[in-house]
Amino acid sequence: MQIKKALITAAGPDQRQLAIQTLVDRDGNRKTVLEILIEEALQAGIDEIAIIIHPGDMAVYKRITQGNRQIHFIEQDKPLGYGYAVWCGASFVANDYFLHLVGDHLYVNRSGVPCAKHLTDVARQQNCSVSAVTPTRENVIPNYGTIGGKRVHPTTDIYQIDKVIEKPTPTLAEQKLIIPGLRAGHYLCFFGMHVLSPVVMEILGNKISNLSGNRIGLSEALNELAAREQYLALEKNDLRFDIGSRYGLLKAQLALALTGNDRDQVMSELLEFFTMKSMNAAGR
Amino acid sequence: MQIKKALITAAGPDQRQLAIQTLVDRDGNRKTVLEILIEEALQAGIDEIAIIIHPGDMAVYKRITQGNRQIHFIEQDKPLGYGYAVWCGASFVANDYFLHLVGDHLYVNRSGVPCAKHLTDVARQQNCSVSAVTPTRENVIPNYGTIGGKRVHPTTDIYQIDKVIEKPTPTLAEQKLIIPGLRAGHYLCFFGMHVLSPVVMEILGNKISNLSGNRIGLSEALNELAAREQYLALEKNDLRFDIGSRYGLLKAQLALALTGNDRDQVMSELLEFFTMKSMNAAGR
Repeated sequence: MQIKKALITAAGPDQRQLAIQTLVDRDGNRKTVLEILIEEALQAGIDEIAIIIHPGDMAVYKRITQGNRQIHFIEQDKPLGYGYAVWCGASFVANDYFLHLVGDHLYVNRSGVPCAKHLTDVARQQNCSVSAVTPTRENVIPNYGTIGGKRVHPTTDIYQIDKVIEKPTPTLAEQKLIIPGLRAGHYLCFFGMHVLSPVVMEILGNKISNLSGNRIGLSEALNELAAREQYLALEKNDLRFDIGSRYGLLKAQLALALTGNDRDQVMSELLEFFTMKSMNAAGR
Repeated sequence: MQIKKALITAAGPDQRQLAIQTLVDRDGNRKTVLEILIEEALQAGIDEIAIIIHPGDMAVYKRITQGNRQIHFIEQDKPLGYGYAVWCGASFVANDYFLHLVGDHLYVNRSGVPCAKHLTDVARQQNCSVSAVTPTRENVIPNYGTIGGKRVHPTTDIYQIDKVIEKPTPTLAEQKLIIPGLRAGHYLCFFGMHVLSPVVMEILGNKISNLSGNRIGLSEALNELAAREQYLALEKNDLRFDIGSRYGLLKAQLALALTGNDRDQVMSELLEFFTMKSMNAAGR
């Protein structure tokens, strides 16, 4: 199975400003979040990337990507939620498996292997959809898509997904999403990175034709995918930052700086800074 | 003397991405650098703000300022340097004194009084141009506009400016810019915030008519201003961050977070973060 296409969603009203934020990457180069995500995809062997954008944002994004011909832009024409944003990439995806990243997350690996490369390698090997997940304390799971299932083999980080519930309450999670062998009070939540079968686009298309509410989520479609096809989860212990959350950008930048080439310089500047701050607090 | 107008320059090729970067301010609200600068100006009693932008950036800036009628946009038509960018605001400024901020700096006061308010109050009182300056170690002065002059009165933070040199070498500074009474090896460098007389526009206009090189600096014009009119400097011990420098945004965000309402929360998250990092380093 080949994975040559990637889809990045960046059209949400809260998201559109985020992908153009600038950070200094591990090598000390200034880059936008979008450029870092594109690199992540290219390092995973992706050839073509479609970015779902808000109408009117084309000029800014084109400036950032500097006419790179591997990058395509698709305007999301209606504000019908995350699932609809993904479906806007249906004709780009066609009948292929694809990597999906969200434009308001930043992924920082601990192992030296880019998160997307690890995920796509596992998907190619397993020949099916695979979502990256991370063990998450029950008090914060109402923020995330959460999976239910079981570990495939005691020695791997791979799980069979039976069920996906978007932003479950802890009570609902306790009833339906407990994963044997996971630390007590922890569940597996989406990491914001998936390799998905084109069947997801068919499921989303059906949901859009029969739209009852005013938004379509991705998790409901993935729940349906789990019922129709082999669908796995890969447990990642890398770091991911929701840069749409308060101080998410700050934490992402610190993570990059403190695990990168400039670590010593940044550490010493931070120390200087904290010293100055405490002198201030002491009434200097 | 009234100061009711402000001019913010944000058109430089390295600057245009910076004013739209997002930070969390001291009150915990997410804002772009531009919005923080606009607030800084409004808190100083400014009624009208002109922002010098790169051609093509209007849509992005208008979205950020949400149709605020106090904000005007002026496109910089030629890339002729910082002095030319300021001069693009000449007809907006007309015959009035004006506050000038640079779009790639962020100012964090230590005293509770916004930097721009302090500076404009002093200018109103002194009835002349006043530039904010900050004592700077000689090894970094080749990055800044630097002044020569003398303290007006031993008990104030106000200096008479005799001379302005852009990015001097330490040798040149030692010959021409030593300020009696300042700590050894330190000079007064621009803080990136000025109240300027409309005569500056006349000086810049003359320089543009007789353009010899391909760029016009602001410092040469201010040097000429010092020869023609009373021109003072106000020493500030507040913090300013050049967000165009590497990790400038990171440091600005930390300064805001650690002196703001969210200090305790951010401190505890940072500690958690540093602990996790060191566990990593220990080979977890």
